Amino acid sequence: MEEMEKKLDQLSIGAIRALVIDEISKANSGHPGMPLDIAPAIYTLVKNHLVADPKDPSWINRDRFVLSSGHCSALLYAVLHLAGYAVSLEDLKNFRQLDSLTPGHPEFGHTAGVDATAGPLGQGIAQAVGMAIAEKAVSAEYPEGAEIMSHYTYCLCGDGCLEEGISQEAISLAGHLKLNKLILIYDENTSTLDGPTSNSLTEDEKLRFKASEWNVLEVADGNDVEAIDKAIAEAKKSASAPTMIVVHTRIGYGSPKEGSCKCHGNPLTAEEGAKAKETYAYDYPAFTVPEEVYANFAKNFAERGAKAHAAHEAAMKAYAAKHPEDYARFEKAMKGDLKEFLPEIPEFAAGSKDASRNTSGKVVAAFQAKCPFAFGGSADVAGSVKTAVPGDPGFSAEHPEAKNVNWGIREFGMGCAQNGILLHGGLRTYVGCFLVFADYMKPAIRMAAMEKLPAIYLFSHDSIAVGEDGPTHEPIEQLCMLRSIPNVHVYRPADERETYAAWQMALLSEKTPTCLILSRQNLPLLEKSSVRGVSQGAYIVYEGEKKADYQIIATGSEVSLAIEAAKILAAKGINLEVVSMPSMEVFEEQDEAYKARVLHLPHEKRISLEMLSTFGWGKYAKYNIGLDRYGKSAPANEVMKALGFTAEEVAKKIASLL
Amino acid sequence: MEEMEKKLDQLSIGAIRALVIDEISKANSGHPGMPLDIAPAIYTLVKNHLVADPKDPSWINRDRFVLSSGHCSALLYAVLHLAGYAVSLEDLKNFRQLDSLTPGHPEFGHTAGVDATAGPLGQGIAQAVGMAIAEKAVSAEYPEGAEIMSHYTYCLCGDGCLEEGISQEAISLAGHLKLNKLILIYDENTSTLDGPTSNSLTEDEKLRFKASEWNVLEVADGNDVEAIDKAIAEAKKSASAPTMIVVHTRIGYGSPKEGSCKCHGNPLTAEEGAKAKETYAYDYPAFTVPEEVYANFAKNFAERGAKAHAAHEAAMKAYAAKHPEDYARFEKAMKGDLKEFLPEIPEFAAGSKDASRNTSGKVVAAFQAKCPFAFGGSADVAGSVKTAVPGDPGFSAEHPEAKNVNWGIREFGMGCAQNGILLHGGLRTYVGCFLVFADYMKPAIRMAAMEKLPAIYLFSHDSIAVGEDGPTHEPIEQLCMLRSIPNVHVYRPADERETYAAWQMALLSEKTPTCLILSRQNLPLLEKSSVRGVSQGAYIVYEGEKKADYQIIATGSEVSLAIEAAKILAAKGINLEVVSMPSMEVFEEQDEAYKARVLHLPHEKRISLEMLSTFGWGKYAKYNIGLDRYGKSAPANEVMKALGFTAEEVAKKIASLL
Repeated sequence: MEEMEKKLDQLSIGAIRALVIDEISKANSGHPGMPLDIAPAIYTLVKNHLVADPKDPSWINRDRFVLSSGHCSALLYAVLHLAGYAVSLEDLKNFRQLDSLTPGHPEFGHTAGVDATAGPLGQGIAQAVGMAIAEKAVSAEYPEGAEIMSHYTYCLCGDGCLEEGISQEAISLAGHLKLNKLILIYDENTSTLDGPTSNSLTEDEKLRFKASEWNVLEVADGNDVEAIDKAIAEAKKSASAPTMIVVHTRIGYGSPKEGSCKCHGNPLTAEEGAKAKETYAYDYPAFTVPEEVYANFAKNFAERGAKAHAAHEAAMKAYAAKHPEDYARFEKAMKGDLKEFLPEIPEFAAGSKDASRNTSGKVVAAFQAKCPFAFGGSADVAGSVKTAVPGDPGFSAEHPEAKNVNWGIREFGMGCAQNGILLHGGLRTYVGCFLVFADYMKPAIRMAAMEKLPAIYLFSHDSIAVGEDGPTHEPIEQLCMLRSIPNVHVYRPADERETYAAWQMALLSEKTPTCLILSRQNLPLLEKSSVRGVSQGAYIVYEGEKKADYQIIATGSEVSLAIEAAKILAAKGINLEVVSMPSMEVFEEQDEAYKARVLHLPHEKRISLEMLSTFGWGKYAKYNIGLDRYGKSAPANEVMKALGFTAEEVAKKIASLL
Repeated sequence: MEEMEKKLDQLSIGAIRALVIDEISKANSGHPGMPLDIAPAIYTLVKNHLVADPKDPSWINRDRFVLSSGHCSALLYAVLHLAGYAVSLEDLKNFRQLDSLTPGHPEFGHTAGVDATAGPLGQGIAQAVGMAIAEKAVSAEYPEGAEIMSHYTYCLCGDGCLEEGISQEAISLAGHLKLNKLILIYDENTSTLDGPTSNSLTEDEKLRFKASEWNVLEVADGNDVEAIDKAIAEAKKSASAPTMIVVHTRIGYGSPKEGSCKCHGNPLTAEEGAKAKETYAYDYPAFTVPEEVYANFAKNFAERGAKAHAAHEAAMKAYAAKHPEDYARFEKAMKGDLKEFLPEIPEFAAGSKDASRNTSGKVVAAFQAKCPFAFGGSADVAGSVKTAVPGDPGFSAEHPEAKNVNWGIREFGMGCAQNGILLHGGLRTYVGCFLVFADYMKPAIRMAAMEKLPAIYLFSHDSIAVGEDGPTHEPIEQLCMLRSIPNVHVYRPADERETYAAWQMALLSEKTPTCLILSRQNLPLLEKSSVRGVSQGAYIVYEGEKKADYQIIATGSEVSLAIEAAKILAAKGINLEVVSMPSMEVFEEQDEAYKARVLHLPHEKRISLEMLSTFGWGKYAKYNIGLDRYGKSAPANEVMKALGFTAEEVAKKIASLL
């Protein structure tokens, strides 16, 4: 009996490896090395441990699996196919082909069973950390919450992920937060793309993880199914630490290129593939899997998943009966539906003024007070970016019910973990740091945009008005970077009303991340600022007494500056109106008629004004007033004066341009 | 005697601390917490160990000192002042004021004695790693090289730097490369901006450094000058590992806010400052330093530096006599002067074609063959980005003479280390990775631009023509990100000739980093591509038979596509000419007459064509053909076809626009 099971294991692992070879050979593109060596570990995980339902891949209480080494997509697709997900042999044959379900790197929302987009190395680990945080936080949010949310998060990575700095941010945080239900499998195959790993990495990974308070296990032979099984079983028992399982393997196992970096990113030849299949004793034609392998996955994975799913459904029903209100809330949380939790926009008194970071802080407070599944934090600048939640103890193993995360000085890790939380579901999040450090987080924002997540970024200290901290801390080109990312909405609100409006837009977003760009300094309330105008991206916020000959298009703190300059110039007979354009991207989404109504003067009659890089403004205005240089360190008003951003100087500049 | 010395130590440390308090109080802005607690360590380093000459702060063989925690600038300026650098009491009084020598964060090239710009956390450590690499590599490049180059690199960091992922990339690499002359002082003051460090960090840093093969030392009491001295002395003896010295301190030592995060980023009040000075028994008016403190620094630091400098000058003279050719080369290397080492631009045969990454690989080979101080590498994609140097063993402790670095999968670390190498001098560098991973490196590129370093970035796989790897690996918005950074030149060459020309521009750059954007796919040689044209940023590369009614402005692989489309449209009576614009920034630097000559048709008669985000093109053309969405995974030609980038589709689109 045991002998038979072992044989079936070998056959099943052979099937995975053979499919990997077939996929990559047919596409003549892909990365066979790691999939071939780590297949037994993934097989063991799926067969004996992973709880998920291939018939309902988005079942909310499934174990999550993140392939951080996204270049191993062929492995994931092969396993998804065998495990009964909606990935057919035909899909495998279309590996890396146009519009197939099996693209080069796994894409969340595109292929059933893919829990996270992966490829940019290291980010998968940090996304998995986010999922493990979400599991703990969601579960803790409800009485007897473990009844409705209790699962593991698994992640597979290679040395590439561990060399990337982002991994350290994730590892450090996971250890600190004692995410005991996070299990990372590290494929230690001693090879990178360019050569042996030892060319660039000699550190002791086990010690590094131990330093971050992880539970560390080791499997000496990546083909030893029993040892892998034992390690995963032990990892699942960890009470207060995430677990890393080092699995020692040989890249391209079983192929003639075993042990060589040459099989990392290159397909095997037909002959090499055949030889490898011989080693695996897998004697079937390409893309052919014996029925008993399917049966094996059905019995040992799909059945377990279906049972667990049914039990969870029953538990949810019982829970709904026992805690109807909590359950209703849970359902809303899992949908991420915020309509009833939107902070109301207050009436603002004329003459009011405040920094938009402060206004944002008020929205954060209101959102946190209203929405039980609001979850936020900052990269050690809660006091400056105004993300602190009064009285909140900070999310931790001891306080999993807390709503505020002290992310530490880990902007990139924070951004990736936010992605993981939103991929998981059950919380609506925001994260904050200074705008200049959007630079550190950029790859995570791109990932959020690709994954179509409604992530919210609060970026304060949004110009040279940072002042004393000087050029290293004064954003110049960061808005260009953010605005140019596809599927990202950037808002730079001009006053309190616009800030509330932009926040509402962010909370109503379902598939698009939002960046809110906030000032350190006070912004005066504009007489005609408009919530509706913000929702349309741009609108005329100031008209002079006479018909305008020119338009100034401005954002954020420069809108009031533009109005002041317009008033100065009106006295000199130059008639300007001012357009507030909090969001270029949202404006672009409006119909042509609206756009033409706002930008009703010709291109050469328009002037853009933003105390940041002019890059990107040429589309809207012939004349671009901005800052295509680094800032200065001095009190904010002095920096702005020195660099020409006073009403008088702007008026002078405009007069000289026209 | 010893008692007197101890008293003088305490007085001197008191002077540093008092100046820090005075600077920050006068500016009413700054970060007193860490400077106050770590002052004794920096004092001890400067007094007993650091070898540098305040009369010649750029002496090439000085010990380097990098303040990675750049927010502690008040500390650095106070010490520079006391140590005899060109930082006066007046400068200290102008701390964080407009155009002072004492800006909010230290700026390289701005203040004497500042070896690196700092502020964005973590980057200082990685820059220090680059300096330590340079020290080893330069020294190894010459026979008896230690005669002319042999120094230590010191770095000070806090927990913020260690939480940032970049620190791990740097630490891991430094350990791997056995940079034994790198000494990192870690101020373990248990406080971040938002609260106790334990809010977000609980890992065992000593263990983490040990995992990366560092030598780890510890000082239990940050005020214990003897223990600090002993630790530094021991660190200097390390034969095969970098050293980290953990110095345990209490933030804001001696002030009423000692131990509280409240003194991290906020000035002390006048009263608190006075109390702190009492603790230090420092009884002098603001900005007042007793003569004996100056004398102490002069005797124990400046004299040592002057002597060492004189000895080094003598050694250099002797070296020049003994190895005249090597010495001449060394001098050129330290100046970074490449004029005589430029690869020649070959004649290209009509009909030639190649991927620009391949052409770049040829330039790399030629540059390496010609220039003895060329030094490059890639983030584990040497084979793809074509940075490999045949026969080179890879830079390591065993092969410090090697010219190629296996940076590992550490793009950000690579970028920062390159900055450190260039700050150090003696090598001219290039680093390479896929364009999409410029995202990971962006903060380092900004830093290079601020530090005015001639860094070279080779970014290959520059469009959806990446193909099978799909959207995560296909750049869209990365050029916007790079082009918008002030003081960066971005070139996207269109063929072999343009690639050579762009490389030449990169090598001739002295104060501006250069990004070379390279294709994965073949690019046909253009009949009229021009080296001179590249040096001017843009030029007309194709004129049809008839006078043009419209212009297409394109870059890189789209230039030949534009020409093809123009030919198709000419047959339909639409006459177009094509402008190749390899570099927007360089074009902007040309005089108005030249610019008008190239863009001689009005804005509404111009069309931009780039298989990337259209963001930023509105300045040059009314019609922008590009890609404001993510790519697809499929063979390159299929992706390009599916997204409309064939000559036929482009011609059709242009016809529909006009």
